[in-house]
Amino acid sequence: MLTQEQPERVCVVLARARNPNNIGAVARAMYGFGFTDLRIVSDYPVPLAEARSAVDASEVLAGAREFTNLAEAIADCNLVIGTTAGGKRVLEHPLYSVAEGCRLARTHLRSQPHNLVAVLFGSEKTGLSREELSYCNWTMTIPMFERAGIRRPSMNLGQAAAVCLYELTRSDTAELPMPLPDAGAADLDRLTRLLADLLEASEYMRRHPASRDEAALRRLVRRMQLNSTDAAMWMGILRQALWKIEEM
Amino acid sequence: MLTQEQPERVCVVLARARNPNNIGAVARAMYGFGFTDLRIVSDYPVPLAEARSAVDASEVLAGAREFTNLAEAIADCNLVIGTTAGGKRVLEHPLYSVAEGCRLARTHLRSQPHNLVAVLFGSEKTGLSREELSYCNWTMTIPMFERAGIRRPSMNLGQAAAVCLYELTRSDTAELPMPLPDAGAADLDRLTRLLADLLEASEYMRRHPASRDEAALRRLVRRMQLNSTDAAMWMGILRQALWKIEEM
Repeated sequence: MLTQEQPERVCVVLARARNPNNIGAVARAMYGFGFTDLRIVSDYPVPLAEARSAVDASEVLAGAREFTNLAEAIADCNLVIGTTAGGKRVLEHPLYSVAEGCRLARTHLRSQPHNLVAVLFGSEKTGLSREELSYCNWTMTIPMFERAGIRRPSMNLGQAAAVCLYELTRSDTAELPMPLPDAGAADLDRLTRLLADLLEASEYMRRHPASRDEAALRRLVRRMQLNSTDAAMWMGILRQALWKIEEM
Repeated sequence: MLTQEQPERVCVVLARARNPNNIGAVARAMYGFGFTDLRIVSDYPVPLAEARSAVDASEVLAGAREFTNLAEAIADCNLVIGTTAGGKRVLEHPLYSVAEGCRLARTHLRSQPHNLVAVLFGSEKTGLSREELSYCNWTMTIPMFERAGIRRPSMNLGQAAAVCLYELTRSDTAELPMPLPDAGAADLDRLTRLLADLLEASEYMRRHPASRDEAALRRLVRRMQLNSTDAAMWMGILRQALWKIEEM
């Protein structure tokens, strides 16, 4: 997980990006994961106005800077990471999986609190050129499913950026609130007793003596992973059935 | 990491997907991560022919099946996972981060070798409906950067699918070959000695006595993380400088 300041020290550099839809998709992923510094390297003006229509991306696109060469675009960066779909060209550079590479990048951001990190993406058609890769400290790739004799699959630029930025901000621990199960132990015990009563009343226990084991019933109820609303509902259901049987 | 058979037991279900570009992007991500079972739920025929143009996606799209209702589409699945951008509606269901959710899904695939797992995506505009979510065992979301007072960011369908499928196949360990550094210890020792000779010959050692520490030089050389080609090149460079100095 990145701290709040760290996304500000990561810039995304698009080398020879042409398709405004792709640029928009990259900007949208950046916005989604909290990154804002987009730099575009292009020989000619990029149709950013077209890309600006991308949902959620306008803030990032409005601040995007254009450069005519890569050296200028990354001049203030201390760690430059190239992204690649793999292949021969890359073997001239250290190659990490995106998981491992992002872990290294996070370590760098943590240990060098004034450094900037650049993540470079090449043109969708050709990827980063040999020349562009020579500016990179190392490269990372998204591991894909390999099929014998068939060329490596790749993703589109927006998808590749989404995965890289996701991985850069990924947390190993589940930090989201998990609303379930939140039924209280007392309710679960009441439910277990009701269930036992019902099994007894319905003569289920006579036919399945093993179900007399209260611990087994308790585990059965716990495995339901109930929230408190559902627990109350189940108690109502069992009570009702019990009442019906006893009334007979 | 999934074993080779496990991707075959995961299907991707698109509920009310309309845009053929999005369907194509999902298919491309599926192909990239080794998944093949795409199911599309729609009230009317989906223009799959248009989506078929997506690079790398044709194999997946050719096998895609269309259903008119969700229950039918997931009838053979044992674990149904809804994806969501978060929000209120979701609180009726257990919600996990995509990292945690995919870990649970992998555990399920491992422990239940005949079960099928469905990963559901809703329409890009509205996400999964309350009705659609009611078919899900639980939901997962891609954690995004939260801005106070601003609605949660979201990604486009192709990006969200790419991140989910990436996470489903993600390996925690770096499994890629790392071509660097591969210079042999003998070469590094030769290089270290050459460097020491050069420091001596250039009178660097006289001005910086600490550089006489051979272990420090050895560490300096190791930190270069050299591959064998570069090591040879560096040796040539040092030898040349040494020769030049000694010739003088």
